[in-house]
Amino acid sequence: LSTPGSAQGPLVSDLGERGLIERIRARVPPPPGSLLVGIGDDAAVVEPARGALQVLTTDAFVEGVHFDRSFSSAADIGFKALAVNASDVAAMGGSPSLALLSLMLPERTPVADVDGILDGLLEMAALGGIALAGGNITRSPGPLIVDVALLGAVRRRRVLTRQGGRPGDGIYVSGTLGAGAAGLDWLRAHGRQPADVPDDAELAACVQRYRRPEPRVRLGGLLGRTRAASACMDLSDGLADAVRQVAAASRTGARIDAAQLPVAAGARRWFEARGADPVRAALSGGDDYELLFSVPARGRGRLRTVVGQARGVTITRIGELTADRGLVVTLDGVAEDLPSGFSHF
Amino acid sequence: LSTPGSAQGPLVSDLGERGLIERIRARVPPPPGSLLVGIGDDAAVVEPARGALQVLTTDAFVEGVHFDRSFSSAADIGFKALAVNASDVAAMGGSPSLALLSLMLPERTPVADVDGILDGLLEMAALGGIALAGGNITRSPGPLIVDVALLGAVRRRRVLTRQGGRPGDGIYVSGTLGAGAAGLDWLRAHGRQPADVPDDAELAACVQRYRRPEPRVRLGGLLGRTRAASACMDLSDGLADAVRQVAAASRTGARIDAAQLPVAAGARRWFEARGADPVRAALSGGDDYELLFSVPARGRGRLRTVVGQARGVTITRIGELTADRGLVVTLDGVAEDLPSGFSHF
Repeated sequence: LSTPGSAQGPLVSDLGERGLIERIRARVPPPPGSLLVGIGDDAAVVEPARGALQVLTTDAFVEGVHFDRSFSSAADIGFKALAVNASDVAAMGGSPSLALLSLMLPERTPVADVDGILDGLLEMAALGGIALAGGNITRSPGPLIVDVALLGAVRRRRVLTRQGGRPGDGIYVSGTLGAGAAGLDWLRAHGRQPADVPDDAELAACVQRYRRPEPRVRLGGLLGRTRAASACMDLSDGLADAVRQVAAASRTGARIDAAQLPVAAGARRWFEARGADPVRAALSGGDDYELLFSVPARGRGRLRTVVGQARGVTITRIGELTADRGLVVTLDGVAEDLPSGFSHF
Repeated sequence: LSTPGSAQGPLVSDLGERGLIERIRARVPPPPGSLLVGIGDDAAVVEPARGALQVLTTDAFVEGVHFDRSFSSAADIGFKALAVNASDVAAMGGSPSLALLSLMLPERTPVADVDGILDGLLEMAALGGIALAGGNITRSPGPLIVDVALLGAVRRRRVLTRQGGRPGDGIYVSGTLGAGAAGLDWLRAHGRQPADVPDDAELAACVQRYRRPEPRVRLGGLLGRTRAASACMDLSDGLADAVRQVAAASRTGARIDAAQLPVAAGARRWFEARGADPVRAALSGGDDYELLFSVPARGRGRLRTVVGQARGVTITRIGELTADRGLVVTLDGVAEDLPSGFSHF
């Protein structure tokens, strides 16, 4: 490894997250036949034994990048670290089953914080039917990190990737948008303690979404089982990013109708009061952990079945995939380029 | 999470790594039937689908804790991050198959370092027959971290845990001891660049062992398949620690004969020249990634089969498990307590 600051060509911040993933994908040798979906989707799909398809994913939760000690309790951190992984498995149409927990702890971490992280993680595990199978604990000379690897089951021909979309497919999103971003924005403005919540109930729901997103595990399984969706992805890095990724993988463009975006009520009021555009916030904000998916015309009937079984999770059509490779959003009748998503670098 | 330095009861450094793992194990709800080996062994063993047993493990490699930029190249880091996980799968009698790579990168990391990490990881992957299935990349506000999760296959009744040992079983170790510790000690004294190597070939082999340990994947598989071993563990945290863990899990004691320890030639000379006791270094030093295993009397014939197929990996009997729960090492005819192993806190 080079010493920090030495001149050695481009930095990771020059390439960005997607650039790095592409670079890695290009260098990995051809995968074995047992690897059905490899690098670049929400999760990998493998067939370790004949007929037993498994979804594999990992996502790290880093202090100072993904969470702040004054915004979230230890239990919130543990809950969310597993939730974001479950969201990736759900986005593949899978059912999460077994988790590995890799903890990196600063030396002065109170044991009570480890207890809290575990409490939250086990709460999410119980909601998702997930068993904690093992893991690793080590010291961190820097931030506290909760890195989770998650295994799930999925049936062949029920796997949802990002690349199955076709021009003309409707683009749908679950739940509401902008809540995670509004919750984080409120915490940055007013949050001093993990227990702080706004008085306004709808805004409090946004803060709760930021602290403890509920991955759409049931919906993902339904979309896979019914084969209603042609492509699917979760919104970890925002709606605009997800639309961009699905369109790129499916080799289509996309047109989003901003008027249809299901902006969370609390988020709409919060951003308007701050003089910000709620629609732009809903397009670019992260942390919603909803599902974005495409549905072909022949899948509309199946989608009605899904909606009927989704137990109150709303499903909204927000646009369609297009043969033209452009990515546009129509705002007040004017088409503009879709904004870029969040990058970790 | 508490703010650093606030008084909130015991710290993780008070409990230590094993204490934390025990605390977590005690709080996790009863596992489902599909989880055959859970928290507390080298790896978990699961049966995601009927008859398809899988080994799951994760191990993080943290800058400033597990590696130093001036001692190891980026490729060394990538190689070792996967090797230590493969060692855990081998210690369960499994064959590694699929890896997930979770990279946490400081903002100013050169892309060349990511390339190097991947080079080394893929080199180890090719040696171990492992495919890189996916992963995650995020920014780190602190150290560079390579966290790997590894999946492997194992056959039912071929799983090697730490708990199958019985009093009277011989204790065996593969390869040589103390090489990793000697290599690290030399690097601390003389290493300034990742390419630095000592002139002495045997000491250079120790430095190489520290930088790129070769996990005993073939041997672990042989020990499982032949059912020669009653218990098995890898030496990531040193021989004394492994003996302690196997004896505790098997509810036995252990007696180790220090004269039988296969101390690496380079390590013996290095520690003697430094005025240190090579045997104590071999007992307590980490980073060897050999296998420690117990063999019952009826397994001796099978062990000869294993030795015949182990392609030059030496196997040495170093002591035996005892009914008396004490842990002793006989040094120059005098029995003393086995030293404690390395703890990450």
